[in-house]
Amino acid sequence: MELTEVTKNSNIIFSGKIINLRVDDVVLPNGKITTREIVEHNGGVSILAINKSGKIIMVEQYRKPAEKMLLEIPAGKLNIGEEPIECAKRELMEETGYIAKELKHLFSFYPSPGFSTEILHLFLANDLEKGVSNTDPDEFLNVHEYTVDEIKGIMQKGLIEDAKTLIALLYYIK
Amino acid sequence: MELTEVTKNSNIIFSGKIINLRVDDVVLPNGKITTREIVEHNGGVSILAINKSGKIIMVEQYRKPAEKMLLEIPAGKLNIGEEPIECAKRELMEETGYIAKELKHLFSFYPSPGFSTEILHLFLANDLEKGVSNTDPDEFLNVHEYTVDEIKGIMQKGLIEDAKTLIALLYYIK
Repeated sequence: MELTEVTKNSNIIFSGKIINLRVDDVVLPNGKITTREIVEHNGGVSILAINKSGKIIMVEQYRKPAEKMLLEIPAGKLNIGEEPIECAKRELMEETGYIAKELKHLFSFYPSPGFSTEILHLFLANDLEKGVSNTDPDEFLNVHEYTVDEIKGIMQKGLIEDAKTLIALLYYIK
Repeated sequence: MELTEVTKNSNIIFSGKIINLRVDDVVLPNGKITTREIVEHNGGVSILAINKSGKIIMVEQYRKPAEKMLLEIPAGKLNIGEEPIECAKRELMEETGYIAKELKHLFSFYPSPGFSTEILHLFLANDLEKGVSNTDPDEFLNVHEYTVDEIKGIMQKGLIEDAKTLIALLYYIK
């Protein structure tokens, strides 16, 4: 059954640094009109990075919406027009100092397809050279490196609370 | 290193049916002030439901932000004050007609912790009885049941593009 919703009107509510918000009037499959609240986001990348010792590179940062520190894989937002694979190399280098020579695409997914256009591309990087990290001046994070056994323990305690990181770790460690 | 961001001001931009939007002025660890664009969402649940034949219950629905049909596990939003496990039973019944006698909590996670307060609780349900589905009048979806081998094929083709569904399937099928 085809369930497309046709847009009748689109009202821009907010244009920000990271997200925009619009409310669309759409026609449902039964002909009724409803509204859809849609957050526009340019998308991003995340990197499951494994160093030469087999350790997984993680970053810990304060996430204002969660009001706490979260332990995540390295990630970042796509610049306008930027290729995901180039963004992944750039973000990994900026956040952790690691240079990835080769990246393998694993999955692309919508974190919140009910209300957000954000799409995330996940890459595997296991051919790493150590360079120098260079975080944005307003970006603050702690870099950690964990063995697979350490990560399993962290997951079992429920301390991985970020969707993209769960996807990467469940893919890798089972 | 403690990296808490202290809120100085909070400005409500929009209050909607599903989400609200606010922009916070926060103090960074270096003392500088910046803004955080934050989507408020009441959170939700998702259910990895396995029927008596070992098939995985999936729902296919049009996702306006993605402008296409996505194949996902059953899921839904928490009502105000609703317990996640009660919400999971209700949503599974409404969307698929299955009654779950027992649910096991697997993970709770933020789909988009960079800008959204949404938290999702994922449950496993493998003790199902068939009841009668009862979708919301403005909710349109197709229910499918797949064997593990069929799901593996669908994943390998890159046709699972929803984060919570990838988490559930990677947990279950590997």
